[in-house]
Amino acid sequence: VNLILIERTEVSPQGDVLLSDARAAHLVDVLHVLPGQHVRVGLIDGPRGTGIVTALDAGRVGLRCAFEADVPDRPRVDLLLAVPRPKVMRRLWAQLAAVGVGRIILTNATRVERNYFDTHLLTEAAYRPLLIEGLQQARDTRLPLVSIHRRFRVLVEDDLDALAPGTLRLVAHPGAASRLRDSLERSDQRVLLAIGPEGGWNEFELALLRAHGFTPFELGPRTLRTDTACVALVSLAHDLLSSR
Amino acid sequence: VNLILIERTEVSPQGDVLLSDARAAHLVDVLHVLPGQHVRVGLIDGPRGTGIVTALDAGRVGLRCAFEADVPDRPRVDLLLAVPRPKVMRRLWAQLAAVGVGRIILTNATRVERNYFDTHLLTEAAYRPLLIEGLQQARDTRLPLVSIHRRFRVLVEDDLDALAPGTLRLVAHPGAASRLRDSLERSDQRVLLAIGPEGGWNEFELALLRAHGFTPFELGPRTLRTDTACVALVSLAHDLLSSR
Repeated sequence: VNLILIERTEVSPQGDVLLSDARAAHLVDVLHVLPGQHVRVGLIDGPRGTGIVTALDAGRVGLRCAFEADVPDRPRVDLLLAVPRPKVMRRLWAQLAAVGVGRIILTNATRVERNYFDTHLLTEAAYRPLLIEGLQQARDTRLPLVSIHRRFRVLVEDDLDALAPGTLRLVAHPGAASRLRDSLERSDQRVLLAIGPEGGWNEFELALLRAHGFTPFELGPRTLRTDTACVALVSLAHDLLSSR
Repeated sequence: VNLILIERTEVSPQGDVLLSDARAAHLVDVLHVLPGQHVRVGLIDGPRGTGIVTALDAGRVGLRCAFEADVPDRPRVDLLLAVPRPKVMRRLWAQLAAVGVGRIILTNATRVERNYFDTHLLTEAAYRPLLIEGLQQARDTRLPLVSIHRRFRVLVEDDLDALAPGTLRLVAHPGAASRLRDSLERSDQRVLLAIGPEGGWNEFELALLRAHGFTPFELGPRTLRTDTACVALVSLAHDLLSSR
């Protein structure tokens, strides 16, 4: 944890907050804070800032916070991802928030198994704390927007323009002629990366994505597990976008 | 699993192998293979090839294998990594083999906790199957070379030239003036990436690395957990090396 994230509703108008959960335990047991000490804080979807430890008592930690004027930009990379199996999805939430995605659009696909949708990991109660864990690691405050879609075609045909307007659309596909850098090094748009299920998109899905503006790109010679591929591709996209 | 890896000693001179472990279970339970079917195989540190299912019996699978003439190149990126905590190390082995590293040099550092070395995850019996899992995912055969060093200074001063001769040496360091691309886009050498502990290298360690030819590079504005950072940086290095 490199920054303690706080909900807006937890902070008094004077900037006081009293923590009594895992964040307090982290401050006490890992960072060994003392009264008067400064710690990095942030408001979820708000600015970063500094908290001064004002009280330490029975595992509770009081902080008086002062926040910066500016809110960090939302990461410029969005993700359209076929739901992976639960074991992979569990690892993915925090890592996606850490590497930086603006929006996570989870979708069904022919090669997604039906029971992948049954996991509690697709409930906000389960994924929100994992996203916050990733943000606290990366010192970001911008919680990725999440939506879950059981009908791929409806998503692509009807919903995507509103969910991710004006994005450069790219789909990872083995054997594609171009590379991620070919598209991104010339772009100042937001980017929407589509990553398919372990067996890949089927032909219908790929054709539908192409018909809706997605350009295929090659991922390289190695076949990666979904979580590894997401970290690699989102990081690469950020590096390319920041190199302009 | 996208390729079944086989030890040289398991194969008869005619190319026959009889599997009875997790690989056989994967072929039967996940791929539902039938006699006569072709599956992708590889020899550890040898060529890829094709296996024809010759026998299926009580969970055992017989394959007759034919291998290609060429052995895949060892990945051009090597890693010098401060030992992370066991939970992270456990996830890292397979992912490193999947994204592709030639050599993994694990080291102590001031900010590495002593007990990180006590885990069974640093024994070959524990990490070799995890590395093979990653290779099978990525369809590679080249097992990363692994060495573990409890004395950082001895490693850097005495051992590194023999372990990683002629490599371009780079160390990830927040605030460095240059980026990974600045060094790699001009290089046709092997690359050795040094990644420190969660709290970073200390000043002595960083000075020692610089004195031994490591150029610092900036990782970007987000602080990543070691496993996420390794996947991101090794993938980025491969992408840059392949873009020349």
